Amino acid sequence: MTNSSRAACQALDADDPLAPLRTWFDLPPGMIYLDGNSLGARPHAALQRAQQVIQQEWGHDLIRSWNKAGWFDLPSRLGNKLAPLIGAGENEVVVTDSTSINLFKLLAGALQIQAASRKVIVTERDNFPTDIYMAQGLTEWLDRGYRIHLIDTPQELTTAVNAETAVLMLTHVNYRSGHLHDMQAVTQAAQEQGALVLWDLAHSAGAVPIDLHAANADFAVGCTYKYLNGGPGAPAFAWIAPRHHAQFRQPLSGWWSHQAPFTMQPAFAPGEGIRRALCGTQPVISLAMVECGLDVFAQTDMHALRRKSLALTDLFIALVESRCAGLGLALVTPRPHAQRGSHVSFTHVHGYAVMRELIAHGVIGDYREPQVMRFGFTPLYTQFTDVWDAVSILRRILADQDYEIDARQEAVT
Amino acid sequence: MTNSSRAACQALDADDPLAPLRTWFDLPPGMIYLDGNSLGARPHAALQRAQQVIQQEWGHDLIRSWNKAGWFDLPSRLGNKLAPLIGAGENEVVVTDSTSINLFKLLAGALQIQAASRKVIVTERDNFPTDIYMAQGLTEWLDRGYRIHLIDTPQELTTAVNAETAVLMLTHVNYRSGHLHDMQAVTQAAQEQGALVLWDLAHSAGAVPIDLHAANADFAVGCTYKYLNGGPGAPAFAWIAPRHHAQFRQPLSGWWSHQAPFTMQPAFAPGEGIRRALCGTQPVISLAMVECGLDVFAQTDMHALRRKSLALTDLFIALVESRCAGLGLALVTPRPHAQRGSHVSFTHVHGYAVMRELIAHGVIGDYREPQVMRFGFTPLYTQFTDVWDAVSILRRILADQDYEIDARQEAVT
Repeated sequence: MTNSSRAACQALDADDPLAPLRTWFDLPPGMIYLDGNSLGARPHAALQRAQQVIQQEWGHDLIRSWNKAGWFDLPSRLGNKLAPLIGAGENEVVVTDSTSINLFKLLAGALQIQAASRKVIVTERDNFPTDIYMAQGLTEWLDRGYRIHLIDTPQELTTAVNAETAVLMLTHVNYRSGHLHDMQAVTQAAQEQGALVLWDLAHSAGAVPIDLHAANADFAVGCTYKYLNGGPGAPAFAWIAPRHHAQFRQPLSGWWSHQAPFTMQPAFAPGEGIRRALCGTQPVISLAMVECGLDVFAQTDMHALRRKSLALTDLFIALVESRCAGLGLALVTPRPHAQRGSHVSFTHVHGYAVMRELIAHGVIGDYREPQVMRFGFTPLYTQFTDVWDAVSILRRILADQDYEIDARQEAVT
Repeated sequence: MTNSSRAACQALDADDPLAPLRTWFDLPPGMIYLDGNSLGARPHAALQRAQQVIQQEWGHDLIRSWNKAGWFDLPSRLGNKLAPLIGAGENEVVVTDSTSINLFKLLAGALQIQAASRKVIVTERDNFPTDIYMAQGLTEWLDRGYRIHLIDTPQELTTAVNAETAVLMLTHVNYRSGHLHDMQAVTQAAQEQGALVLWDLAHSAGAVPIDLHAANADFAVGCTYKYLNGGPGAPAFAWIAPRHHAQFRQPLSGWWSHQAPFTMQPAFAPGEGIRRALCGTQPVISLAMVECGLDVFAQTDMHALRRKSLALTDLFIALVESRCAGLGLALVTPRPHAQRGSHVSFTHVHGYAVMRELIAHGVIGDYREPQVMRFGFTPLYTQFTDVWDAVSILRRILADQDYEIDARQEAVT
């Protein structure tokens, strides 16, 4: 193949129109960071923005910053800035709370809108577990006969979604395999069966082009601290199709979702539109950091990022399969571009130990049970030479069996 | 009275053993900040801690910080640091999510533990509205015949809490009036009727001594960004009496409350103890700031703070009533120490406009509908001379009618 040398990768970097965007990020020298799908790298701007929020807005302006610095409107303002990345419109997105909590709100709202006779929530057994746990929590508490139907392959969708389905709840890009659903086709097929469709964009927002309106999706949640580089645990986002705004209700009806929060009425009355997805006061410092991640995206567009993402994942798959052939790795991630997100996973029988050794050598990926090594490629800052060098180190570790197979497993979020 | 001169207040400051703690905070020169009950002032340490989290933990160590920097354990570690301030024990408190969301979790858990035949949640009409909204959201969604009984005076508690009561849910210090409940007596009386008692400590944690164990309370939530100085919108806390840990379940059962979050099981199984109150990934930067606020409390104790708090509020009430006599102010806050938190409220027919003018003159209090001007006294940094000077400015504004009565009202959180 033409890219099978480091020099060829250097040439790809030299020709990469997105290469200058790497300078927006603080990337530790000597580290090959392939875990932006778990925690995005730090935009340089984040430090200065934090200083501004802490010194000026909190320290100096204090309580006045709720209005003066726009803290109260931050969930909406950031939502509007994020919206173009997911094909959403103005006043359709809020950045708030966690992905789990937003999923709970939107799933509850979907069940309320849906016909009460439809009792099944369809999702994948391999969905990120917290999505299933939240659906479980909600339905067990409602105790109205709802049940969760877990499917094992995307092919089952055609039969699993039927006249009993209330909501189809899917993660757009699978956290472990990197499998990408065809949002438009899946949404349309499910809606033809009368289901509502809720997408979790945690592993796709900022990684692949998304057009919620073109797909006619109903609801979406997602994460800002992965490909959107919003900072550790930064608040998540929620989107509701405008056609559902008027009927939408959710049980976490805190004062930020009230139509007049400062009139201090003892009875709840919902506000307008997407504000109905809000609940309580937000962690302003973490929330403010989200903007620094979003600002980088204004320098490019999702289609340019997708081109580079596919070039990076193609290269990684090809180099691993050629240079690490016979060393026990098996590709988990789909080969077709249309089914691939922006991370690539391989299994290895000692996957945890191998990943631990990779990390010790400065190649930061992560590990997910069972046996899966994940490598995330963030086109904003990952270089083609990073891919070459990561594979070189992986090959050496595997060839030399230079890993401790009894390594104690530690949690990595 | 003996304190009726600025010189007398200067002498009180000179004698104040807590006076040195003011140097731990960044307080803008020329400002008299009497709104720490809404947003606590910034500890100097917060800036450096934010730099550490952003540059070192996020920027340099990246994903490894979930373990290396203890991000994953931060809710528990901060909970343990907060626990002594509220009379809680080790592994009984987590700092996580918002007060509204924590209240939802704990109220849901209380209803689950309580006999199903008990269908009434008792609270005050004058409770902070979001507490009522969350109870409304929960009970309407459960749709099992629960209803909320709103009482108008604390005296009604004796009849309102009865054999039908599932949960008595009260805010310890009322956000508007500053009224302080007798936690021990109220808890005991309610429990004698078979009710569970959930306390919202938003306006009392860090402001008054609290002993959840001595009071035999069942559940508590509270806020870290008011008297605890944790930063704007910083994550809230949740406490569950150890006797309830084993039975406790809540519907926001995200992966952080799972017994083995990283084994990625599709079925939810609750973790141990207070971790059951967790849900999803936390906003690390905002969460980390909470520690800077808590660290100041290690320099003193709640009884010393209470002595100064009462001295400050006594002084404020006395000076307003003497120096502003006949100028239209009426005290809202109870006079007995045992019924008073750490803020004082007065009504004025033009309360909003007067507060606006006070703020323009550097005296930062806030306003709550209807007609209530609130003044918060934070013994960690409020000086006796601040009280004198604030009253002087208030008197001049009222005496000169130096306020714009048509001032447009703006929201202040």
